[in-house]
Order: sequence, then structure tokens, then C-alpha cells
Amino acid sequence: MTRTAREVVLAHAITEPATAADFALIDRPLPDTLPPGSVHVRVRWLSLDPYVGQVLRGRHMGEAAPAPGMPLPGEGIGEILASADPDHAVGDHVAGHFGWAEEAVVQASALRKVDAAQGTFEHLGILGMPGLTAWVGTTQLSRIEPGMTFCVDAAAGLVGGTAGQIARLLGARAVGIAGGADKCAIVTGTYGFDACVDYRQDGWSDRLAEAAPGGIDVHFENVGQKVLDTVLPRLSVNGQVILCGLADHYGDGRPALLNAGLLVGKRATVRGLVVYDYVGRRQEWIDFALPHLREGRLVEHDDIADGLEAAPLQMERVAAGTTRGRPLVRVG
Amino acid sequence: MTRTAREVVLAHAITEPATAADFALIDRPLPDTLPPGSVHVRVRWLSLDPYVGQVLRGRHMGEAAPAPGMPLPGEGIGEILASADPDHAVGDHVAGHFGWAEEAVVQASALRKVDAAQGTFEHLGILGMPGLTAWVGTTQLSRIEPGMTFCVDAAAGLVGGTAGQIARLLGARAVGIAGGADKCAIVTGTYGFDACVDYRQDGWSDRLAEAAPGGIDVHFENVGQKVLDTVLPRLSVNGQVILCGLADHYGDGRPALLNAGLLVGKRATVRGLVVYDYVGRRQEWIDFALPHLREGRLVEHDDIADGLEAAPLQMERVAAGTTRGRPLVRVG
Repeated sequence: MTRTAREVVLAHAITEPATAADFALIDRPLPDTLPPGSVHVRVRWLSLDPYVGQVLRGRHMGEAAPAPGMPLPGEGIGEILASADPDHAVGDHVAGHFGWAEEAVVQASALRKVDAAQGTFEHLGILGMPGLTAWVGTTQLSRIEPGMTFCVDAAAGLVGGTAGQIARLLGARAVGIAGGADKCAIVTGTYGFDACVDYRQDGWSDRLAEAAPGGIDVHFENVGQKVLDTVLPRLSVNGQVILCGLADHYGDGRPALLNAGLLVGKRATVRGLVVYDYVGRRQEWIDFALPHLREGRLVEHDDIADGLEAAPLQMERVAAGTTRGRPLVRVG
Repeated sequence: MTRTAREVVLAHAITEPATAADFALIDRPLPDTLPPGSVHVRVRWLSLDPYVGQVLRGRHMGEAAPAPGMPLPGEGIGEILASADPDHAVGDHVAGHFGWAEEAVVQASALRKVDAAQGTFEHLGILGMPGLTAWVGTTQLSRIEPGMTFCVDAAAGLVGGTAGQIARLLGARAVGIAGGADKCAIVTGTYGFDACVDYRQDGWSDRLAEAAPGGIDVHFENVGQKVLDTVLPRLSVNGQVILCGLADHYGDGRPALLNAGLLVGKRATVRGLVVYDYVGRRQEWIDFALPHLREGRLVEHDDIADGLEAAPLQMERVAAGTTRGRPLVRVG
């Protein structure tokens, strides 16, 4: 009898933010024998970062949306149950794209081995791309010095939250910008920022000025025009801006614009960050992060849903912006 | 009898670009005795950089326009005829603001001594602020490496022309952007750029693409939106942009805007340049420039009018954009 694995797929193509009803749970057949170079993986964790919602709608960097019934995007952590690849052994932990599935057979060459002693889901988050993104912005594309004021928006997210924590480890004051009192509580409580400004409150520009009375020395941008228009006038002379994400603008066609005259007056340095350029330097970030993680000076805040069948609702929450912390599914 | 010196002043307040008829030639009395700390200078050269025209209209960085009859802005080179300052001797050459005058009595502390053996009017130009501006952009705010393609607009001007020459000395290909065939002839002929694109010609965007087939690695911006919109899409990945001047926007109230998403995609670095931050490092630039100047590897292209009485028409030509090379007046 052919073995099958439970998997969540799109029930139909979508153009609007995903809801739980857009998905279906299927049983996908697994091959009877492993093709050479492949491994059979039991998926432990699935990460539903916001970009996944964009991919599902065909709105991420020109990628086509997955067709209904096809494997869905999202990085996972799995444990190898069987291997037809000489470089991978049973029991190894790997990160990769397995679909939203409990088990999968995938090409081993597309996987990244992770050290389960260092963490499991952390390899998708603070030790993975979101953490790497924060590290690149704070250590490779800017110079943060003790006493500086560092600002980041989407600060309750893992990129922003990690960036602010790194800035503090480098001796800076960290000011976060986030939407809502509960997110700000994560920013100052869980992530330990010095201050957080709620951009949904009237007068948040004045609150930002109070939180950064000497100006903002380094700003890490994840959102777009609304924040840029408020932050850039408060940039210090010789201020630095890392353009990382422009989440407000994905898919809406409006560009985020920077006032060149303002940048000249501020003697600003603006740098664009594309994390894919730095995947080869991931180990540097892990080496930096691990001791801080173990000692609790770096933390990640997660929003964990249990069981594969919880994935559709978790995606709906991601798309609606109601998750708190990094959205994960504990698959098994 | 009180001694006087001939001087050009505004005949009336102006709001439009200056014309020769806006000025008057007067005889200004000089003090009978030199106040302590002052010097009596015979003016040799007067530099009428475009910003002077903006100041006359009250449109330069918030400076008030000079009232009719008051000394006009513009840096000059003079020779000391008499000194009441222990640090300045008769025969010393100095750079400073003397008004548009043949002689002036000024505070010595506001002057900068220049070495007449190194040059005279060059201390206002290629060895002065315009050259320093070019040096800051090409050596302090960007990293130009051999084989790179460097682009600069207003390339027939001294800032742009010097920037391209420095880029070539650093091993880059220099592509200029200028308005008109005669200016482009200066850019490639006098300044030795590898190519020049005339932005007044239809299809200049395609000409730029042909002149920089591998993309633009470093762009030095002096003009504004029109050039930025054409150049930035042609920036190389990891390209660098120096925002120096936004001449098209001075006084018109429109901001020059940069597309943040484009900067991210290009992994661009954008830096604002304010030359006043670097006046303390002028000697570094002079030390770099002098051997190249002497050997003819660095040149400045000047547009010299003879005699103080020629200053009003020279200013009119500056304001109308019809000068070719750096506008100077040989006062005496």
C-alpha cells in the first residue's frame, strides 16, 4: 500500500489575504522508494512569515502563486527518517521547503543542515533569515556605536525585534515603532527596547521625538512611506538609514519616496538591504547570536499553533495581522 | 581726502535671475586707518559661482539677499596692500569675501591664506570649494575602484568636471551628463571624460545606456529629479549615489524624490554631501591635486571676464546658464 502524508494546500486560487477557508487538507502519496539524492523527512516546524501570504496571492517579487493542490511555500525544520543521500543521515535535522506537510520526500541538495543542539525552530527565525536580516542591517550596512539612538519599525516582528536587541548589545538605545499597545508591550517587555511608539496613536510623531530627543542616529526601515515621512526629519546629522522592507507597499504599486534634499541636509547614508546576498555568511551571525541566545540577551517572541491542521487559521491570522510574535506551526 | 574703491552692488532688490542692469558701480570709501586685525586687500579675482545668483535673489539656504548698496557675495583672491594684523604681511595672497570690489578692508581672521606659487584663481576653483566638493564625493563618500563606471551630471561645471577627472585618476570610466553639444565638448575634450550624454537631446536615456553598458557603479548628482529618474534605474547592483547638489530644485519648492524600492533592489548606497563639513580637510585635497594639476592630468575650464565693470554681465551670463566653464572675473 502506498504511504501518504497529510498536507495542507490551497483549495482554490486567491487574490485577497488568505483565510482558513482557502485551504484544504489532503493526503499526498509518498514514493515507495527514495530517489537517489533524496531524503524522507518528518516535518517538525513550519514558519509562516508574512511573505508567504504574499506568495499565495502571487504578489511576492514576481513569483507565481502555487496552483491549488500544489505544495505551499514556507520554510520548515524536519528530521530525516530515511536517506538516499550520502551526506545526510537518519536523525539529521534539516531546514528547507517541505510544503505544509507532516512528511515529505525532497532533494537533499536543497536542504540546509541545522544543529539541533543549537535550536530547532530558532533556525527558521532568530538563527535563520529574519535574524540574519537584522544582523546584516545592524552590523554590515550600518555602524552602530555606543550611545547612539537606533530606531526600527515593525519592531514587534522578529526582524525588527532582533535588530533592536542587536543595537542594544552594541551599546545603542533602541526605540521601536509598532502598531498597538500589545505589540509595544512585546517590544519593550520581551525584546527589552528602551522605548516603543505606537504609530496608531494620534501624535505619535511627537512621541517619537520624546523617545529620541537627540535625534535618530540609525533607522532600520521595514514598513514604508508613513514611517519614513515621520522618521527622516528626526534623523541626526550623519544619520544612517537601512532600507530593508517596505511592507506597506508590497503589491499596492505606490512607490515609497525619499526626499533627496532632506538626505543631503542630514548628510545621511541610505543603504538597501537584500538578505539573500548574505546567506553565505549565516554562520557568522549564528556564532554571534548563540552565546547571547543561551544567556537570554537575545530572545525571539513566537506565536505557535499546534498541529498541521492549525496551519490554515494561523495563515489567516498572519494575513490579518493578528499574530503576536513570529508565526510558527508545531507540525509534530 | 578719503580713499575710495570701485565696487559693484545691487541697484535694486531682485527676485528674478540677475541681469547686468540690476547692478550699479559705486565708489566706496575706505577707512583712513586700518582697524586692528584688519587688512587692506587689492582684489585680483572674483568667482561668480551659480550659488551667488541664488543669494542675490534670497534663495540660497535661507540666507537673506544683500540689500541694494551692500557688499555682494562671491569669493575672491586678493593681495595684501597693508596689514594691521600680525599674522598677515604685505604681499600675502588671501582668499575671502571682499565684495565685488577692486579693493577692500576686511577682518583678517575671516581670510584664508593661499600659496600664490600653487595658483591664484585655482584656489577659488579646483583647489577651492568646487574641487574639494568633487574630492569629498569621489574619495570620502564613495569607493571608486579601477574598472568602475562613474557618472556625474552638470559635468561641464567645475564640480562635475573635477569629479569625473578624479574618478578617471582612480581608474574608473567617466561618463558625463551635460546640456548641449558645446558643454559635452568641454566634458570630453577639456576634462577628458570617456563619454558625455546631452540631456537636451531626445533619447538621451538610451544614449546613457550605450555609454554605460555595464551599468553605473557610482553616480554623483548635482541636478535633480530629471537626471535621477533616468540614472537610478541604470545603477549597478551595489551601486553608489552621492547626492551633492539639486540645482534644478533650488527655489522651486519641489522636492527631488528617490524611489526607496529601487534603492533596495539595487542594494544601493546613497550619501548626502555637504562640503562645508570638510573645509578642515582642504589641504588633503590640495596635496592630492597639485601634482596632477602641474602635470595636466587635472584641469579646470574657466570663463574669464576682464575688469570689475564686466562683473554684472558675467553674472547675467551665469544666471542665464550661458557661461562655459567656471565663471571668473579678473578684477585687476
